[in-house]
Amino acid sequence: MFGVVENLNWMDALRARLGEAVSTDAEVLSVHAHDETEDLRFPPQAVVRARSREDVVATMEVAHAYGVPVTAAGARTGLSGGALAVKGGIALSLKGMDRVVEVDLANHQVRVQPGVIVQELQERVQRDGLFYAVDPASRGTCTIGGNLAENSGGPRAVKYGVTKDWVLNLEVVLADGQVIRTGADTLKNSTGYNLTQLMVGSEGTLGVITEATLKLLPWPRHNALMLVPFASADAACAAVAAIFQAGVQPSALEFMERDAVRLAQDFTGDHSLEVGEDVAAHLLIEVDGFRPEELMPQVEALLPVLEGAGAGEPLFADDAAAKDRLWFLRRRVGEAVKAASVYKEEDTVVPRGRLPELLRAVKEIGGRYGFRSVCYGHAGDGNLHVNILRDAMPQEAWDEELPQAIRELFAEVVRLGGTLSGEHGIGWVQKPYIDLAFSAAQLELMRGVKRVFDPKGLLNPGKIWPD
Amino acid sequence: MFGVVENLNWMDALRARLGEAVSTDAEVLSVHAHDETEDLRFPPQAVVRARSREDVVATMEVAHAYGVPVTAAGARTGLSGGALAVKGGIALSLKGMDRVVEVDLANHQVRVQPGVIVQELQERVQRDGLFYAVDPASRGTCTIGGNLAENSGGPRAVKYGVTKDWVLNLEVVLADGQVIRTGADTLKNSTGYNLTQLMVGSEGTLGVITEATLKLLPWPRHNALMLVPFASADAACAAVAAIFQAGVQPSALEFMERDAVRLAQDFTGDHSLEVGEDVAAHLLIEVDGFRPEELMPQVEALLPVLEGAGAGEPLFADDAAAKDRLWFLRRRVGEAVKAASVYKEEDTVVPRGRLPELLRAVKEIGGRYGFRSVCYGHAGDGNLHVNILRDAMPQEAWDEELPQAIRELFAEVVRLGGTLSGEHGIGWVQKPYIDLAFSAAQLELMRGVKRVFDPKGLLNPGKIWPD
Repeated sequence: MFGVVENLNWMDALRARLGEAVSTDAEVLSVHAHDETEDLRFPPQAVVRARSREDVVATMEVAHAYGVPVTAAGARTGLSGGALAVKGGIALSLKGMDRVVEVDLANHQVRVQPGVIVQELQERVQRDGLFYAVDPASRGTCTIGGNLAENSGGPRAVKYGVTKDWVLNLEVVLADGQVIRTGADTLKNSTGYNLTQLMVGSEGTLGVITEATLKLLPWPRHNALMLVPFASADAACAAVAAIFQAGVQPSALEFMERDAVRLAQDFTGDHSLEVGEDVAAHLLIEVDGFRPEELMPQVEALLPVLEGAGAGEPLFADDAAAKDRLWFLRRRVGEAVKAASVYKEEDTVVPRGRLPELLRAVKEIGGRYGFRSVCYGHAGDGNLHVNILRDAMPQEAWDEELPQAIRELFAEVVRLGGTLSGEHGIGWVQKPYIDLAFSAAQLELMRGVKRVFDPKGLLNPGKIWPD
Repeated sequence: MFGVVENLNWMDALRARLGEAVSTDAEVLSVHAHDETEDLRFPPQAVVRARSREDVVATMEVAHAYGVPVTAAGARTGLSGGALAVKGGIALSLKGMDRVVEVDLANHQVRVQPGVIVQELQERVQRDGLFYAVDPASRGTCTIGGNLAENSGGPRAVKYGVTKDWVLNLEVVLADGQVIRTGADTLKNSTGYNLTQLMVGSEGTLGVITEATLKLLPWPRHNALMLVPFASADAACAAVAAIFQAGVQPSALEFMERDAVRLAQDFTGDHSLEVGEDVAAHLLIEVDGFRPEELMPQVEALLPVLEGAGAGEPLFADDAAAKDRLWFLRRRVGEAVKAASVYKEEDTVVPRGRLPELLRAVKEIGGRYGFRSVCYGHAGDGNLHVNILRDAMPQEAWDEELPQAIRELFAEVVRLGGTLSGEHGIGWVQKPYIDLAFSAAQLELMRGVKRVFDPKGLLNPGKIWPD
C-alpha cells in the first residue's frame, strides 16, 4: 500500500507517481475549472490526465495518503457542475482513456473505457449492426464515463431507457486505490447488492469508473420523424399521455416551446421552418423499427391521437437530411439558450401525465418573480428542462430572489410526484434544494453509503448535499 | 420512539403492539419454516401477519428495541431460502398486504402492496390494456414483494428485463421502524444515490418493502410460440446466440434438456408431445407484438436461423390452448424435478454465448462426481437452472462431496464471465460460494452498506454471506 512519503508534499508525490500526466499549467487548470453549467469557475490545483487504470490507481493512492480531493471529469459537458473540483485538489481527467476495448458480437455487449465519446461508441457498434441507445444532446462531445456518473438520458430514453438501463458491470477504482468489479457481464444478476446501480448516477462520489460493460441491441435502423405544432403548450403536453394510452411507443417524444425553437433557429441560422404566432409549442415525434414495414402502422396509430389532441398539420421529415435538420435544431436548443442570456437550467421530472400542471407552475412562478423561461425536453419521460433567462433581471434579484423561486418550483415538482433531476444530476447547483427531495432518514442513509465507500470524503466533495 | 418496556419480553411487547396479528401456533410456525428450497426447515419463534404499513413499523420497532431478528416473507416460493428465519426470531408475513393500490392510466404505472400475487397483478393491469412483464414460473403463487427482494426474472426477461427494470419507487420500513421512499414515481431520476436499485435484490436484508411503484407497458397481446427440437444440447445453446445475431428479439427463449421435458410430462401426465431419443433438447421460442402483423416477419426471420443451427421441425402452437399446454409443461419442470428426487438447484448465469461451455462443464463435473443433472432455463439470458438430482447418491457423498462439485461448477461459471445467481438470489443456500463471486473489497463494501441500513444486524440475518 502506498503511504505518505516523508519530505514530499502531495503534489510532488503525485508527480513522482504519474510524471507528465500531472499538469499545473495555468491554462490547463483554467480549462478544467468549468463545464457547461452556467458560468461556474472552480480551478483545481492539479490536473491528472489518466492514460490507464494504473494511473487512476496511482492518483487515488496519493490522494488517499495525503487527503487530497479528487474530482473525476470526462468532456465536462455536464449541466449540474458534477465534474468541477469545487473543493480544489485534483481534477482527474479520463478523456484519454478512450478505447472501445471489445465489441462482443456473440453476447451483444461492449466493453469501453470511460473517455469514449458517446456518438463514437454508437457509430462503432452500428458498424456491426448493433445499437447503443442513450444519446444525450451532447453525444458528439460527451463521454460515456460522464453519462455513467450522471445517469444521462436523451431523446430515446422514452423507449430505450437511460444510461443505467444499459450497464451490466463496471470496473471501479475505490477511494483508497483498490479496484473492484461491481457485477458480472451477464444480463441477469441476483448475486449480492447491486453495486453497479449504486455507482451509476453517484456523480463520482463513490469511486472512479475505469471500464464499463454495456448491453447493446440489434440496431433499429429505420425510423420516421415528424414535427407537430400545437396552438397551446398545454395541449402539446396533454397529447403526450394520450399517445402512450393509444399503445404507441415512440422512440423519441420531445417538447419545445415556441421560444425554444426560435432561439435555436437564431442560433443555427436555419429559419427554414416557419413558426407562426399561432404555434405555441411543438412535439418532435420519432418512431423506429428493425424493418421499414414496422413504421407505417405506428404512424397510422399516432395521427388520429394527434388530431384528437388538437394538433396542427404534422411536418414529416422526408429523408435523412430533413431528419438531421430537425434533430440538429432540437439538439442546439440548450446552446442557443446559453448564447441568448445568462441562464439557469432546471432538469425537472414528473410523471408525464402531470406535465401540463408543471408547465403552468413554471409560468405562474415566473410571472410572480419576473423571469422569462424557455421550456423544452423529453416530454415522453415527463422530463422538462426549464431554462430561466436572466435577460434584464437585476443582479440582486437574480442572486437573492431567484433561489427562492427555484425552491418554489421544485416544491411543486415534488408535490406532482416528481423530483429534482431527471438526467443531469444534482452536482453543485441543485444541492441547496436536496431537502425537498429527501427526508432526513433518506439523506442519512445516502451519507452513510458515502462514508462506506469514501471514509475520508475525498471523492468529488461538495456535491449532492450541503456540507 | 418505541423502546424497551420494563418487565415485558419481546414476545409480550410484540403482542401488546400487534395483538392477533402475532401467532406462535406450532402449525403456523411450521408452515413458515420452509419455502420451495430443497427440504430446508427453519421455524421462526413468532409469525406476524402484517395487514398494513403500520403493522410493519410496529414489528420493526419492537424488534429494534429488543434486538430480535426479522425475516420478511411473501408466498415462500423462493429457491434460495431467502425468506427463511434461519436465526429464529420473527417471520414477518406480508401476504395479507395484497392490494393493488392504484392503476395510473395516464402514466402507465401501478402502485402495489408487497403481497399481491404476480399473476393477479398481470391480469389486473391487462384489463386496462397494460402489461407487467416479469413472470416467474411461480407467478400464479409468488408475490411481488418476493420478486422485488430476490430480483426475480422469468421467461420474458429476455425481452423485457427482470423485476429491477420495472421498479420506479419503493416505500420501505427501515430496521428501526422509520419509513422512507427510495425514489420518485418518475421514469427518469438522477437525484442522489439509487436506493431503489440497492433495495431490489437485497433479499430483505436492508429494509422491508411495503409498497412499490412499478412501470407498465402497453400490452403486447399477440404472440406466436414454437417448440424447436435439437439433436444436441450444444446445438440448441449455440442457436441462441445466432438468433440474436440475426436481429430477432424473442419475448421468450427457453432451453429444456430432454430429461426436463420428460420429467415434466410424467409430472403433468401430458404425454401428447413425442420426445424421441434423437431429440436431446428443445428451445421454446415466443415472439410478441402489439399488432398481429408484427409476428410473421419475426417468425420468418427465425426459421432460416434455426435451420442453419441444425434444428428439427418446429412445432407451432396453433391456438391459445396449445400455447397454454406448452407453457404449462415448461412452468412445471421445477416441480417435476422436485417430485422426482431430492435435488439441489443452481441458478447459474453466464453471457449467453458461453452457454454451450457451461452445459459441457455441468456434465463433465457430474460425470466426475457421479450425479445426474437436469438443465433448463432462460437461455436467452444465459441463465441456466442446473438441477442436481440425488437419485441413489449415498448421503455422505451428497453432504460432503457435492458442495465441492458445486464449488467447481461456480468457479467455472465465474471463469466464463458469469455469476452465482441470475434470478433466485443467494439467500441461505449459495452463501458458502459467495467468495467465488466477490473479492474481499467487494464483500467489505456490501457489509458496510448492510451496517448503514441495519446496524444491529436484525434484518434477515444469516443470508448472502457467511457469518
